[in-house]
Amino acid sequence: MRKVTIWFILFVWTSTVFAQKRILMENLGVSQDKDITPIVLEALQQADFKDAILVFPKGTYHFYPEKAIGKYHAVTNHDNSYKYFAFPLIGCTNIEIDGGGSDFIFHGVMTPFLVENSMGIKLKNFSIDWKEPFYLQAEVLESNALEQYVDIAVNPMTKTEFEGNRLGFVTNGLSLPFLGESMVFDPKTNAVAYNAQSYLLNGVASRKTFDQSLGGNNYRIKARFAKTPAPAGLIYIFKGPNRSNRLAPAIHLTNSSNLHLDKLNIYHAGGMGVIAEKSENIHLNEVNVKLREGSGRMVSTTADATHFCNCKGELVIENCLFENMLDDASNIHGTYVKISELVDKHTIRAGVNHIQQFDYNFASSGDKVEFITNETLLPIAPATVKSFKKINDHLFELSFVEELPATLKVNDAVDNVTWYPTTIFRNNVVRNNRARSILISIRNKTVIENNTFSSMMTSILFEGDLNHWYESGAVDDVLIRNNIFYDCVYGGGKGSVIWINPRMKQTLKDQPYEKNIVIEDNEFRTFDNSILSALSVDGLIFRNNKIIESGTYPKLWPGLPVIEVRDGLNTLIQNNSFEGKEKARIVIDENSSRSLKIDKKQKGFVIDKK
Amino acid sequence: MRKVTIWFILFVWTSTVFAQKRILMENLGVSQDKDITPIVLEALQQADFKDAILVFPKGTYHFYPEKAIGKYHAVTNHDNSYKYFAFPLIGCTNIEIDGGGSDFIFHGVMTPFLVENSMGIKLKNFSIDWKEPFYLQAEVLESNALEQYVDIAVNPMTKTEFEGNRLGFVTNGLSLPFLGESMVFDPKTNAVAYNAQSYLLNGVASRKTFDQSLGGNNYRIKARFAKTPAPAGLIYIFKGPNRSNRLAPAIHLTNSSNLHLDKLNIYHAGGMGVIAEKSENIHLNEVNVKLREGSGRMVSTTADATHFCNCKGELVIENCLFENMLDDASNIHGTYVKISELVDKHTIRAGVNHIQQFDYNFASSGDKVEFITNETLLPIAPATVKSFKKINDHLFELSFVEELPATLKVNDAVDNVTWYPTTIFRNNVVRNNRARSILISIRNKTVIENNTFSSMMTSILFEGDLNHWYESGAVDDVLIRNNIFYDCVYGGGKGSVIWINPRMKQTLKDQPYEKNIVIEDNEFRTFDNSILSALSVDGLIFRNNKIIESGTYPKLWPGLPVIEVRDGLNTLIQNNSFEGKEKARIVIDENSSRSLKIDKKQKGFVIDKK
Repeated sequence: MRKVTIWFILFVWTSTVFAQKRILMENLGVSQDKDITPIVLEALQQADFKDAILVFPKGTYHFYPEKAIGKYHAVTNHDNSYKYFAFPLIGCTNIEIDGGGSDFIFHGVMTPFLVENSMGIKLKNFSIDWKEPFYLQAEVLESNALEQYVDIAVNPMTKTEFEGNRLGFVTNGLSLPFLGESMVFDPKTNAVAYNAQSYLLNGVASRKTFDQSLGGNNYRIKARFAKTPAPAGLIYIFKGPNRSNRLAPAIHLTNSSNLHLDKLNIYHAGGMGVIAEKSENIHLNEVNVKLREGSGRMVSTTADATHFCNCKGELVIENCLFENMLDDASNIHGTYVKISELVDKHTIRAGVNHIQQFDYNFASSGDKVEFITNETLLPIAPATVKSFKKINDHLFELSFVEELPATLKVNDAVDNVTWYPTTIFRNNVVRNNRARSILISIRNKTVIENNTFSSMMTSILFEGDLNHWYESGAVDDVLIRNNIFYDCVYGGGKGSVIWINPRMKQTLKDQPYEKNIVIEDNEFRTFDNSILSALSVDGLIFRNNKIIESGTYPKLWPGLPVIEVRDGLNTLIQNNSFEGKEKARIVIDENSSRSLKIDKKQKGFVIDKK
Repeated sequence: MRKVTIWFILFVWTSTVFAQKRILMENLGVSQDKDITPIVLEALQQADFKDAILVFPKGTYHFYPEKAIGKYHAVTNHDNSYKYFAFPLIGCTNIEIDGGGSDFIFHGVMTPFLVENSMGIKLKNFSIDWKEPFYLQAEVLESNALEQYVDIAVNPMTKTEFEGNRLGFVTNGLSLPFLGESMVFDPKTNAVAYNAQSYLLNGVASRKTFDQSLGGNNYRIKARFAKTPAPAGLIYIFKGPNRSNRLAPAIHLTNSSNLHLDKLNIYHAGGMGVIAEKSENIHLNEVNVKLREGSGRMVSTTADATHFCNCKGELVIENCLFENMLDDASNIHGTYVKISELVDKHTIRAGVNHIQQFDYNFASSGDKVEFITNETLLPIAPATVKSFKKINDHLFELSFVEELPATLKVNDAVDNVTWYPTTIFRNNVVRNNRARSILISIRNKTVIENNTFSSMMTSILFEGDLNHWYESGAVDDVLIRNNIFYDCVYGGGKGSVIWINPRMKQTLKDQPYEKNIVIEDNEFRTFDNSILSALSVDGLIFRNNKIIESGTYPKLWPGLPVIEVRDGLNTLIQNNSFEGKEKARIVIDENSSRSLKIDKKQKGFVIDKK
């Protein structure tokens, strides 16, 4: 039996390898001084879009949108637009791009890689960067809290545009008339600044600035800061207004399968590093989203390093470094769509509600879904999709094989449960970024192990909501082990290092939303109190974890308990240890206490049961 | 023979009429208080998109984008975007929309009518208007030329948005952060103000304003005006920045045939009234683009009333009123695309160059084209299209049945000569608008008769260029007769009432660009000198015309001759009369003089031959 298997594997391996033609890009005339975009297209056409390896000689290559394949293109969690693709891997089979260790430099608003309707794609051995960053970076020279202004020196890598009394900027041909969304970094730590949220220009404040040129690249920004302008020495990053700052992700994987990303350095993107949707079997190995040494840039991607929406099969993310993004390292989730009309016994109208989900291909015939109650986010009944017809980018008609459940009503939701992966997230480093390390909202087996995490917000977040992001869904089997959590949640917002926080309007005490989350053998070395906060979870286990107060910063939320469980069922807390100035509080609400098992001899804790 | 024809016509007529099912919209529940958009879709689905008349009972009906059919959509001479359609006449045959005299009111950024891939479509008996106009209208309260500011009272029909020190506005859900493109109207004449171009904020000046709230709806706009701010009492219209002010044309006709528009009042559009491209046989009768009485609005459509790009068959525009648009009454032309690469003996790469032509479907297999020399705009050779493949929205590959001409070079152009109509423009009134009355750039027979024209710029313009609009092409047979031209070219710019002005880099003296333009039996009652200026035309006839100086305004260009011909061949000027304070100068250059025939006894003229 074993012999047969080995022979079979060898057969598949050799047939695959031999089927791929090597196309040497130097024979097509790639060189460092021309636009490589049309040459890539020529190579793909030569291979008839299948069974080929495009091999680049090591070098620095430039890509421009002018001659790139283009189309109107929707990318989930981004801004839809007419986009240009340097590597249009559309309808491809068994294609590998081997960069040979090259640097790929992109110019303008373009999407370097699109993998669409393809199978068996491997991207390896290259870096992605842009000549111009999609943000403005500026050092604080002087800060005046009383008069609410900062004087900044703008890094000349981005061209400013001063009109009226407002500072904007022009980058990659894009004119951004406002500073827009902001973050503050600390050059001493190379990370988001401690308590950075106090220094931001939130919402309309980022449009309503009264600016003044101070000569050269220096400007005075007078505005309503969240609390106070950032002190001298810190670095402001502005990425322009919402709706025009997520136009250029580095790699988009959609409606494809068997995708391997190997040894990539993504130094920048005007959006996410890797955004995957409705795709099956994805493996990221050594895909680093990181700063390029010596670039002087403080930010890598302007949104998440990686993001997976309704993927299925096996998702593996390993041996990666994710640093200095302006959003999460990884967000793995499904999609709740909201019902707007019950058309007939088998048919509803529903839609996506967040503008960055517009034009999303939610379902196909044969997909299994669950109907979800608006108030509790709990499932009503399963069903099978018969047809999915788009009316426009935010509204579609869904019909089902089965009759609709009798209790189903407008504003309830649908969750496409065919499209969830099993996930492994291991041996990764996440650090210095805005927002969370990872978000997990998927029902299948998930293992998070041997990582180190240090993010400005929560490190591992579980949510699910039907009012803001519309990201489903409940987890069922998660193992978090052998990770080290360094200083987290230092940006100023409330949160826990591990935060189980589904956002339903109403929790049913005997029917928790999340299930089976095991957190064991981890080390937490952070400055603030809240390590674990859990709401509405059945089968939470927190054991054999070591918590050591780091003392790096003053505590931001000293009133919070170290561990808190609300509306939990069958919680087990066992054999953890705590080292800190005071005893660590464990707070369990009345509802959770009934089925709680807790080890009372754990070192350094005090238990507060309601 | 005659009997047979009549019987045949009767047969076609009756079979057509009997084939159309009447769908009474009241039976589908239309009423004045709901969104009619999904009901229109239901009616079209009921009819299977063919052989039906949708009959509205007279009323006022409202249409919203939320439930409208949507898609990314390119519209020539507009801004491409994801658009929503209230009447999505896509793939329809033999459909009539009978509004029964109703008012159709649109809300938000949407396109009321799309006729695409359809044949036999009739739209009749309704009006199109928007709840909110796509512009800001403001009366000048005070004007200070020395300090370059105006104080304005903004008409509250548009909501202002004041941020930083810049006035912008929000309309139809669109946030326009700058005042953008401007025009000045005179409420005494209800038309564009005399010498309005002096008062404008051109280009970057419309972004770089320093504004100040004066309380209520009053603002001070401090900026660099073209010459001087408009005096008190005049009306500024601002339509927001270029690239975001042509998103919502009223009626788009594309890739369709046999289209009838009858008795329509288009009171407004955020773009053109009727924009047609690549369509065959179009008839407009009583399609008025006009102000709604009592609305207080000074502007109808924010771009051309009508516009026809590469249409063919018969185009008839008759009995229409076109007033107070922010652009031409009609522009009928083809498209020059510029060659960027000679790929092989049969293949070129070429592209559209103006951003408002992006994603244009320039040609199809079988189309006849002409290659055009860049320098002279003259034809090199004809050819037949074998294939047309888009690379992106501004670049495509064209292959031809024939070999490319030996002299063809990069930057030469291609003109699709299959797609030109014969045109009749008669019994129309054009008045009070910004820009020209009509532009004619088509090779087939064109008759312009029994119209009255009064526009701020040229009334009838012939051009053709390969550097700005890329609108082809040369005319071959134009008859302009029995029209009355009232005050024209009063906006301040240079130009003639009839201006034949192709824009080639180089004119060949023995090969004029334009041919056979006959201007006869017209009456010109305008205040300024220049009635006709002609460049590079063979067979120009100007006869039996009456010119009477109106004295309405001081002359803007008193140095210009009344008639001027340069590089003309076979010009005839005969039996015209002129009444004015001084004699009217006719200036003919040396090259034109050789083959000129001129009647020296014409009343009121003095001839100046070089």
